[in-house]
Amino acid sequence: MNFLEQRIASDGKVYPGDVLKIDNFLNHQIDITLIKQIAREFAYRFEGTHITKILTIEASGIAIATLLADIMRVPMVFAKKAETVNCTDDKYISQAFSFTHKAQTNVLVSKPYLSHDDKILIVDDFLADGQAAKALIDIAQQAGASVEGICIAVEKSQQKGGESLRKAGFRVESIARIEHMDYQTQSIKFLQGEDMMWFA
Amino acid sequence: MNFLEQRIASDGKVYPGDVLKIDNFLNHQIDITLIKQIAREFAYRFEGTHITKILTIEASGIAIATLLADIMRVPMVFAKKAETVNCTDDKYISQAFSFTHKAQTNVLVSKPYLSHDDKILIVDDFLADGQAAKALIDIAQQAGASVEGICIAVEKSQQKGGESLRKAGFRVESIARIEHMDYQTQSIKFLQGEDMMWFA
Repeated sequence: MNFLEQRIASDGKVYPGDVLKIDNFLNHQIDITLIKQIAREFAYRFEGTHITKILTIEASGIAIATLLADIMRVPMVFAKKAETVNCTDDKYISQAFSFTHKAQTNVLVSKPYLSHDDKILIVDDFLADGQAAKALIDIAQQAGASVEGICIAVEKSQQKGGESLRKAGFRVESIARIEHMDYQTQSIKFLQGEDMMWFA
Repeated sequence: MNFLEQRIASDGKVYPGDVLKIDNFLNHQIDITLIKQIAREFAYRFEGTHITKILTIEASGIAIATLLADIMRVPMVFAKKAETVNCTDDKYISQAFSFTHKAQTNVLVSKPYLSHDDKILIVDDFLADGQAAKALIDIAQQAGASVEGICIAVEKSQQKGGESLRKAGFRVESIARIEHMDYQTQSIKFLQGEDMMWFA
C-alpha cells in the first residue's frame, strides 16, 4: 500500500451505499502534510508536461489544487457550482449530477480564465462516476484548452468513472484506487494494477 | 500601497452596489504567487502565537487557508455551507446570511475537528459585514477553542464587519482595507490607519 492507501486503511470508515468517509484528513479537516504529499506525487507524475493551469471544482478539490499550483508555479482556477445561471454571456457552463445535493448542478468558469493556449491538469479529491471530471473536461474543451491529465486522490474504481475516462483517451492518475469496500467488515481493497508499479 | 492594494488598484473592477470584482486573482482564478504572499504575511503577523489549527469556510477561503496551514504546519478545517441540516448530532452549527445566494445558510463543522485545546486562526478572502467570520467564531467558541485572530485578505471597511469584530476584542488582520469605492470613476480608496504602519 502507498502512503494514501495506508492512511485510508487506518483512518477511513465505510458507510452503507459505498460511502467512504475520510473527512478527517482529506475533505473537511485537511492534513496538510498528506495533501502536500499528494500534490508532490502529481507534480512528479506530470513532470515535463508544461502545464499552464490547474483546474478544479469547489470546494474539496481546492486544497490539493492549491498546493499543486504552488509546486508547479501556475495559476489555479476553481469552477463554481450554481443551481441557477443568471448571466451566461461570459461563462463556460457544463452540468454535473451532485450526489451530495441529489440534483443536477451547473458548473461554471468565467471565460477569461481559460484559453485555447492552456495545457490543463484537472484535480479533484474523489473520482466515482466521473460527473465532476467530465464537466471540467467539457469546460476545458469549450475553451479549446488541452487536458493533459486528471489528478485524483481517491478513485472508486467500482463506479467506472475512471474506466470511461481512460477509454476516452484521458490520462487519469489516481493515488489510491479502491476496488471494493465492505460496510459489514469495514474492509477496503485497493486495486494493484500494473500502472501502479512505477509508483514512487 | 502594499502589494495587495496595488494589485486591486490595477486589476480590480468596481460594480454597482459596492461590489469589488477581483476574481481574476483572488477567488475564481487564483494567482498562486500573490496568495502565497498573503499567507506569508499572515504567518509573519501571527508569529509566536502557537496556532494549532486554521479555520475557514468553503469555498474561496480555502486557497489562502491551505497555504497558511502549509507554512504554519498545522491542519486546516473548512466549514461547510448547507441550506438544510439533516444530521446535527456530531456537528457544530451556526448561521450566516449569504449575499451571493440571498439566503440564510447553515455553517457546519464536524465536532471531532475542533477542540477546547485548539488555538485557531480564522481565514477568509473577504470581510464585509462579517457574517461568515462571526459564524466561524461562534463555531470555534462552541468547541471551547480560542480564536487567536482573524486573517482577511480584503476588508471592506465601509461595511463595518471588521469594526464590530475589533470592538468585540478580536484581533483582525486585513492586508487591504478598502475605505471607499466608486463605480462611476472606478476609484478605490484604501484605509491607511495607524495599524498599518508596521506593515512589512
